[in-house]
Amino acid sequence: MNIKRILIYMLLGILCIPTAYSQSKKPNIIVIFADDLGYGDLGSYGHPTIQTPNLDRMAAEGMRFTQFYVGAAVCTPSRAALLTGRLGVRTGVYGKGDVFRQNSASGLPLNEITIAEMLKEAGYSTGIIGKWHLGHLPQFLPTKQGFDYWFGIPYSNDMGLVFTTRVRPGSAPAGPRPNAVPLPLYRNDEVIEEEPDQRYLTKRYTEEAINFIKNNNEKNDPFFLYYANNFPHTPLYASPDFEGKSKRGLYGDVMAELDWSVGQVLKTLQDLKIDNNTLVIFSSDNGPWLTQLDHGGSAGILFEGKNSTYEGGMRVPGIAWWPGKVPANVISTELASTLDFLPTFASLAGATLPKDRVLDGTDISDLLFNKRTNVRNIMYYYINDNLYAVRKGSWKAHFTTHPSYSREAPVDHEVPLLYNLDVDPSEKYNVAEEHPDIIEDIRKEYEKQKAVVPVPSEIEKTIVQQN
Amino acid sequence: MNIKRILIYMLLGILCIPTAYSQSKKPNIIVIFADDLGYGDLGSYGHPTIQTPNLDRMAAEGMRFTQFYVGAAVCTPSRAALLTGRLGVRTGVYGKGDVFRQNSASGLPLNEITIAEMLKEAGYSTGIIGKWHLGHLPQFLPTKQGFDYWFGIPYSNDMGLVFTTRVRPGSAPAGPRPNAVPLPLYRNDEVIEEEPDQRYLTKRYTEEAINFIKNNNEKNDPFFLYYANNFPHTPLYASPDFEGKSKRGLYGDVMAELDWSVGQVLKTLQDLKIDNNTLVIFSSDNGPWLTQLDHGGSAGILFEGKNSTYEGGMRVPGIAWWPGKVPANVISTELASTLDFLPTFASLAGATLPKDRVLDGTDISDLLFNKRTNVRNIMYYYINDNLYAVRKGSWKAHFTTHPSYSREAPVDHEVPLLYNLDVDPSEKYNVAEEHPDIIEDIRKEYEKQKAVVPVPSEIEKTIVQQN
Repeated sequence: MNIKRILIYMLLGILCIPTAYSQSKKPNIIVIFADDLGYGDLGSYGHPTIQTPNLDRMAAEGMRFTQFYVGAAVCTPSRAALLTGRLGVRTGVYGKGDVFRQNSASGLPLNEITIAEMLKEAGYSTGIIGKWHLGHLPQFLPTKQGFDYWFGIPYSNDMGLVFTTRVRPGSAPAGPRPNAVPLPLYRNDEVIEEEPDQRYLTKRYTEEAINFIKNNNEKNDPFFLYYANNFPHTPLYASPDFEGKSKRGLYGDVMAELDWSVGQVLKTLQDLKIDNNTLVIFSSDNGPWLTQLDHGGSAGILFEGKNSTYEGGMRVPGIAWWPGKVPANVISTELASTLDFLPTFASLAGATLPKDRVLDGTDISDLLFNKRTNVRNIMYYYINDNLYAVRKGSWKAHFTTHPSYSREAPVDHEVPLLYNLDVDPSEKYNVAEEHPDIIEDIRKEYEKQKAVVPVPSEIEKTIVQQN
Repeated sequence: MNIKRILIYMLLGILCIPTAYSQSKKPNIIVIFADDLGYGDLGSYGHPTIQTPNLDRMAAEGMRFTQFYVGAAVCTPSRAALLTGRLGVRTGVYGKGDVFRQNSASGLPLNEITIAEMLKEAGYSTGIIGKWHLGHLPQFLPTKQGFDYWFGIPYSNDMGLVFTTRVRPGSAPAGPRPNAVPLPLYRNDEVIEEEPDQRYLTKRYTEEAINFIKNNNEKNDPFFLYYANNFPHTPLYASPDFEGKSKRGLYGDVMAELDWSVGQVLKTLQDLKIDNNTLVIFSSDNGPWLTQLDHGGSAGILFEGKNSTYEGGMRVPGIAWWPGKVPANVISTELASTLDFLPTFASLAGATLPKDRVLDGTDISDLLFNKRTNVRNIMYYYINDNLYAVRKGSWKAHFTTHPSYSREAPVDHEVPLLYNLDVDPSEKYNVAEEHPDIIEDIRKEYEKQKAVVPVPSEIEKTIVQQN
């Protein structure tokens, strides 16, 4: 072979690289995760006055799930479940107090494998924009859990100077609380601001998300972006472009800005022409925070909200979008969960699943591509490490119930309450008497799951030692 | 002018007729009216497992109202309000017993002017397919109220041999009731069957509706079709093509068939290429019948159901479709009511409005064509002739409340309950204390409306004389 021929082959080889690469290119993955947004809070999920044209369009161009669940009914355990594909009883991210607070001594244990760690191994660039809430001490921050980049707040937006914007008549005004620690805004491991003006958080998060996408696109790196906006969790803040503009009041303004933000992310993908290689999933960490009255959201047709094992606590909007891959205009009634993200993303990215531990999620890529049904059949509903309810197929049995944010003691049911959720999504008509056989079947699942011994609680580890 | 020239002009004149006619042709109008279908019972209104692809497509190609009302919370007065544009206190179609029953001696008074009568005057061919429920004695049937054609049942589908298909454990089976009168099926003034097989009602209604459209299209007559399906009112029946096919149980099967039927009507218009000249509106006569448990529907995010003056009783789905005229893909949060149909249709058809009586409806064609907002600002909520609540703008004040289908006495509120419906559609957060000024403003509307003296009740006129 002469030199000329060798040079020609080399040239051909080089020319082939981009084609070969783009054909086998790993898909980008974006999770947009709202905070305390209820099942009934989007236009496409039936809210009468909250207007979400971008999310509605995302649903029309993709798949809208009507039976989509989170791994826990409150913030911290739900986020741990999403990132690890494991329930709180396995990771320790559960406990009295519900979430990591300013006096927490712990976080998501470092030996847990997050989606970010898994995808980083598979060659992904990984970023989190927004809320973390899995440990605010330096050793537990996102950069220690697989994320290359972080811009955001280590916990909820009510853990700074302002607790709520919903002032009840006769109660104290909404201003700064005495002795409160200002809300820190991080870039990677560094606090860049204290108590940032929350009216501009969504705008700043949006800009950061767009930059993250653009930067990785330029580097031609596949990326995983976890965009966890702090809203519509209270205190509610919208930028002047949105404040006072919606019929639904401040909550509607905040939702309109969140919807705008999602639209900006999708538009960026389309402008960069990487929409056909990017899966975007939109969801929320738990149901609406009903104690915040009209500053909280709504679960729509579902009963109860955040902190409840009724459907309103754990069933949330779920929209998947991937033009050309996820079919358009599908309303899916299949069961799915944020617990499924890790195994699903592993499958899409060709990443290696953790083999040395139990996962509670299932690969649902066949659901997303509308190739198979009944991929997931079971849902567990925990409060802390207590299993309250089990769904199997269309049936849900409540073995223990408790009104959310109530001082009443939980009630154990010797004969569980039984609802057919496909027929009765509002859990109104207990049909236990009519179906003893189904109760016995679900009781077996309940006993099996109860046998999972919880690891010690990380949330209960606080800096001021408890006795 | 020679004869040849005259003949040429005559020929030209004849040739011009079709063009001139089609340009000025009056629009066809179709109202599809479901029975007891709740606000939350369609896919596009957020139901998790009821699948209504045809109605969802109708909404996507048209306008979906999220604050659309009926004139009364039960069947008979709601239908009278739709057909006359007037409240029950003016027509007499209200009263104890709620609806016309088998022992009724009356019906919608013949001196009332119905949409059918008004449009007939304007050159329309008029038909009703389905349920009437405005008087079953010969002198009150649809053909005496402006309809050229009727195929259907004179009252509800539970007023024959079978009352309900929802059998509670331990209660009597759903079979024929003793001493019941069989359900009559009419064609015009003639009973053509007794106790027709209700499983085939929707199929037969669909066929009748399609034939009515085709026949009038052939005759080139503008037409008004009032297609009032008997379902999803109990007892529930679906044809074998639909029974057992939906996740939502028999109610979902019935809804799927109703949705199919709507799709057939729209398809017929498209096949005949008259979709661009036909307004179709879909709605329901009142909220879901909650006492029927899972054989009743759901009001979704709204509180309560049929027979209630809470939103779930009187706010219903409302979808308007007219390709090229009603803009596509609009979610309208504007107030509108079936009371508005008569004046709106008068405006669209160039018909003459009744001038000698008060109308409670408003011409909303500007809303339908998205040209104006705030066309309607007030809603009244009556139980019989008692004014319970008033909505003005986003605010609703309840002066009297009562749980639907309860033996409890109604409660009058000296300080009414006040809800901001745009912010709090579920009527959860009474903000009366915070807004005494708004209460005083609505109280004026309440007093003004209370001054309307009800005409005598027609519903209370029964064959067995009451004392």
